[in-house]
Amino acid sequence: MPRICRRCKVEKAEIYLSYSREYLCLDCFNRFFEKRVADTIERYKMFRAGDYIGVGVSGGKDSAALLYVLKKLYPNKEFVAIHLNHGIGEYSRDSLDRARELAESVGVDIHVFDYVSRLGISIPDVELTKYRNKVCSVCGYIRRWALWKAASELGVDILATGHNLDDTVEVMLNQFITGNFEELTRLRPVLPPEVPGQVWKVKPLIRSPERDNFYYAMFNDLPVKRIDCPYYVDARSTRRKRLLDMWERESPNIKFQLYSVFTKKLIPLIEARYGAGVATNRCRVCGGPSYGDVCGACRRIELVREAKGL
Amino acid sequence: MPRICRRCKVEKAEIYLSYSREYLCLDCFNRFFEKRVADTIERYKMFRAGDYIGVGVSGGKDSAALLYVLKKLYPNKEFVAIHLNHGIGEYSRDSLDRARELAESVGVDIHVFDYVSRLGISIPDVELTKYRNKVCSVCGYIRRWALWKAASELGVDILATGHNLDDTVEVMLNQFITGNFEELTRLRPVLPPEVPGQVWKVKPLIRSPERDNFYYAMFNDLPVKRIDCPYYVDARSTRRKRLLDMWERESPNIKFQLYSVFTKKLIPLIEARYGAGVATNRCRVCGGPSYGDVCGACRRIELVREAKGL
Repeated sequence: MPRICRRCKVEKAEIYLSYSREYLCLDCFNRFFEKRVADTIERYKMFRAGDYIGVGVSGGKDSAALLYVLKKLYPNKEFVAIHLNHGIGEYSRDSLDRARELAESVGVDIHVFDYVSRLGISIPDVELTKYRNKVCSVCGYIRRWALWKAASELGVDILATGHNLDDTVEVMLNQFITGNFEELTRLRPVLPPEVPGQVWKVKPLIRSPERDNFYYAMFNDLPVKRIDCPYYVDARSTRRKRLLDMWERESPNIKFQLYSVFTKKLIPLIEARYGAGVATNRCRVCGGPSYGDVCGACRRIELVREAKGL
Repeated sequence: MPRICRRCKVEKAEIYLSYSREYLCLDCFNRFFEKRVADTIERYKMFRAGDYIGVGVSGGKDSAALLYVLKKLYPNKEFVAIHLNHGIGEYSRDSLDRARELAESVGVDIHVFDYVSRLGISIPDVELTKYRNKVCSVCGYIRRWALWKAASELGVDILATGHNLDDTVEVMLNQFITGNFEELTRLRPVLPPEVPGQVWKVKPLIRSPERDNFYYAMFNDLPVKRIDCPYYVDARSTRRKRLLDMWERESPNIKFQLYSVFTKKLIPLIEARYGAGVATNRCRVCGGPSYGDVCGACRRIELVREAKGL
């Protein structure tokens, strides 16, 4: 016997939310999902009137859900999609195609920051350096930097990214366990500029479980990349995520609970003690925030360029 | 082929320590266990010269390991074993017998605080009150109070208890998740007196995993109770412990790592912000520390006495 939607009590239920113990139909799930995003944006005052908003769009489900829901919730705001082309062969071509398709379907311009034409390097070139076993880590440094760079060039006020609840909680827990308390402050839903002229960073999906983003993208037929990144074999983070999933089976609400403790209790405590973990220098190369003379991204980009003889 | 002990490289290994990936023989395990306890006592300066030390002895493996190892490490210090008789039928009789046997075998006097003769109540009497579904919680309140009371009467300077690593980390994690940050400070290895004249509380086994205490008690033929408490069916804490055990299979060191983050990073941060969570009042009934007019233990004892018509 098919279950009936707990909310409308009319339609057939299509999805079960274990954390709220609800069976929902497609329409009610969409409304529920969108309301949570709207609540998150309101709660943390992510957008202000007249903001020009950049949305990081990778080609994946999270950022697809993000751009789609933002345009639906705020049809009159000005958005621009930002895509980074990492130059990882077929994977990057598929990602770019899906990102373009998505932007077009929601009627938002897309700006592509192409690593090869802009920096002279691609992510596979990292294998030429001493970081050959840390491609994902270097990619993370360059990705944050390139998103910031593209956002600055476009003159956007806000940069929205698709960080989901699961990833956020996994990283929070890991930083906590390893005692990197100051790094924890970077996991807040809203990050103000670290140096003058930098954009605000916001994470409207920070309270959306990965699985919900997947279903939202699927139910709304959003174009999503079909190829996995060939470098993504981060066994440790996968193991930690599996652990959180086991934990969730015991306590269906645990990810929300951890998110809440981290953002409402621990991070404010850390900030009260150490400040907001803001880098005080400006990078000599790019002018962005840096702990030293040259920022971590510029150092890595330079290293890869050198390895290529550039 | 039997494995050889990693340390002495002579004897047959009898135990595997997953967190340090070592196979050890009985003698080397004993030495390793004792050194860790000695290091913990030194590190936190738990004992001072001339201290008269009360040791809580329940009849279980943790406190048996504690009294035995303390007497072995500090043969010239003055110890007294303190046992609480909860009046839980056969279980309590078995516990008392084992505690007496242990104290006698190590040559330490034992002081028994008997609930029925001292308070007029037993733990089963809690079932007569509105707390009938929270017997374990009430027992915890009364146990902490009675240990303190007995220790004060004996005039000891320090009260040592057998809290192990697993229990400590389980409670820490739970207090963390539920956001009870101020309660976390009570989980430190050393608790100073909250009101003048109270004893110091120390936990020399706080870095000893439960399993190691079990093996230490077994290898040294310590008398340990054979009957489980009939009230112990705390499903939630058992579930949480199982989760930590699963986590440990992925990261063999996780309990030590969590312990270290909590005690070295989080608790100092909380204390810097809120103070050490010390109760400022004195209980009108017992004179012990209290948040209100009458402390939580005295209120519960009185409730049970009333239910018995006392």
